[in-house]
Amino acid sequence: MTIVESVRWSPDGDGVRIIDQTQLPGRLVERDLRSIDDVCDAIARLAVRGAPAIGIAGAMGLVASLRSFVGDAPEAFEARLRAHAARIRATRPTAVNLPRALDRMTARASEARGGPEEMLAALRAEATALLDEDRAMCRSIGEHALPLIADGARILTHCNAGALATGGIGTALAPIYLAHEAGRRVRVYVDETRPLLQGSRLTAWELSRAGIPATVIADGAAASLMRAGAITLCIVGADRIAANGDVANKIGTYAVALAAQHHGLPFYVAAPTSTLDTTLPNGDTIPIERRAADELAVLHGARLAPEGADIDNPAFDVTPAEMVTAIVTDRGLFTRPYRFRGIERSRDPGRVVQSRPPALGPSTP
Amino acid sequence: MTIVESVRWSPDGDGVRIIDQTQLPGRLVERDLRSIDDVCDAIARLAVRGAPAIGIAGAMGLVASLRSFVGDAPEAFEARLRAHAARIRATRPTAVNLPRALDRMTARASEARGGPEEMLAALRAEATALLDEDRAMCRSIGEHALPLIADGARILTHCNAGALATGGIGTALAPIYLAHEAGRRVRVYVDETRPLLQGSRLTAWELSRAGIPATVIADGAAASLMRAGAITLCIVGADRIAANGDVANKIGTYAVALAAQHHGLPFYVAAPTSTLDTTLPNGDTIPIERRAADELAVLHGARLAPEGADIDNPAFDVTPAEMVTAIVTDRGLFTRPYRFRGIERSRDPGRVVQSRPPALGPSTP
Repeated sequence: MTIVESVRWSPDGDGVRIIDQTQLPGRLVERDLRSIDDVCDAIARLAVRGAPAIGIAGAMGLVASLRSFVGDAPEAFEARLRAHAARIRATRPTAVNLPRALDRMTARASEARGGPEEMLAALRAEATALLDEDRAMCRSIGEHALPLIADGARILTHCNAGALATGGIGTALAPIYLAHEAGRRVRVYVDETRPLLQGSRLTAWELSRAGIPATVIADGAAASLMRAGAITLCIVGADRIAANGDVANKIGTYAVALAAQHHGLPFYVAAPTSTLDTTLPNGDTIPIERRAADELAVLHGARLAPEGADIDNPAFDVTPAEMVTAIVTDRGLFTRPYRFRGIERSRDPGRVVQSRPPALGPSTP
Repeated sequence: MTIVESVRWSPDGDGVRIIDQTQLPGRLVERDLRSIDDVCDAIARLAVRGAPAIGIAGAMGLVASLRSFVGDAPEAFEARLRAHAARIRATRPTAVNLPRALDRMTARASEARGGPEEMLAALRAEATALLDEDRAMCRSIGEHALPLIADGARILTHCNAGALATGGIGTALAPIYLAHEAGRRVRVYVDETRPLLQGSRLTAWELSRAGIPATVIADGAAASLMRAGAITLCIVGADRIAANGDVANKIGTYAVALAAQHHGLPFYVAAPTSTLDTTLPNGDTIPIERRAADELAVLHGARLAPEGADIDNPAFDVTPAEMVTAIVTDRGLFTRPYRFRGIERSRDPGRVVQSRPPALGPSTP
């Protein structure tokens, strides 16, 4: 089974090899990021995406970008380290994983003994540790969720919570990879996931690479497929989970949960404990990012909605805890009433959901 | 208020003026169809679409295509009439409106007294009658449904059941036009309606032309907008309605109905009586057309899903009668238990839903 690796060290060890996700699904293009410009550009234009993957790429990219300066004086090297970290940090303001990973890197560098050579070795070890932890987190989620994926399962998923979004085998897709590896026959129904089509562009692509049967459907087709008996369970990722188990995830997730409930199907959420945000009592307080109208109005230069049309483009929605059958984390499977306090790795959410208007409603023209 | 006319006589009376819907929403291009090639090409490449609109364009196009042959001998003219009708009939095999309209045209021609000049006049009168009947049907639906659209209504609709799909002011959009005309403040939430985007491309466009506030949303956002209280009612069209009130309509309609039911919102269907098919006891026997994978996989030449991906693209779904608050027709408003027998204009459905596989499920690779 081929599970793609979205971020890893390049074969010579000096660069960060990424899959350029802007080229998917048309072409598999790998790029080795070596300079600070390479790294910042790849993150900014979404060649690497997915909060865990961005954090890892930023940390590893910092190492790669410093390699050619290892002959500098210690002070100059440290100044460059800080400058590069600041530039990488500024590429994407939303996901908390990136600044958190960079904080770990700079802390590790300041503890390192010796000159630039030793400092770079310490940074490289820390970046590798971040990658390894993410891989382990993915695998742990997969193992905890594996019993949910029976032989013959027909699984609906939404968006991409797979290998392309992490350093490992994904979150929602992790148990599917493990079930396939264990010889269980599964089929994944992949919501295309408008507006950015992470389902058809990314999830279908990475599953097909792994030889896992996958069927792309329009988002609007999911409910009627459930009605026809084509689906046996749903599993999705999460962007933030409140203390009561309310789940913020890609827009359209709530509609899937609602249809699953109506048809008596299990609806699972798979996410690392870093996604838990027990500072929020429930999902009503999760701010919902509204994204650019052009995500709906224009695609590859073609106009899909009238010029000047009012467009409401919430990027996320909130699924109430009572519609979630279970939340599977790297620390195990949780069901209502949720008792998350103390198990989350950090009080910071895994991905900050950037705020604009405080509640759902039409966007202002 | 400007309600677009998708099909009408050209100003000189000799051609059929259509809006080329393939150019929407980017450009408003009108074309005058004058020759048989013009007419067949416009219908085949979906420059005119929507079952009622196609029937009217075919009938009017037949007249236009015969004008330059009015000097022919009667026998030659009649042979040409039959040949042109056959060519137009062959352009789109699915919708029953087109052959039904052409049957009316040829029947009228065969009753006409006199030579080609008189025959053409009779055909023109018949085509105009078809257009007028369709306009009256739309207005009647609008008037019957108008009481459902209160001042301040925030209405969700799916696909395009508007002026662009008919000769008149549409079906689902008809009461919205009338409510706006009556000074009621309304806002329409327009599902973009993947895969062919008739919502964002067509519905948003025609509503904006009429000055009616409209907000385009991703299909996946409808349920969460309902949860947030942004919607007060739903109204959609129909492609076929079974005797028990089960409704076949564009894929995604069932998901809208399900969300409406969950949130306690009215879900109305607006359709002409010609859409009723009382030969079918319920929706389970309505065959569901599966359309080409490329509708999901490719857009304007850009690849949205991996090459060779398995794609399931049902064009329609069935909403069970118990989820439909009321069905509004040109003959009035109906609620459960439905008693349609005897009121439908024809036992033929308004639009045949072309069959491929017998039930929902994955498409074969």
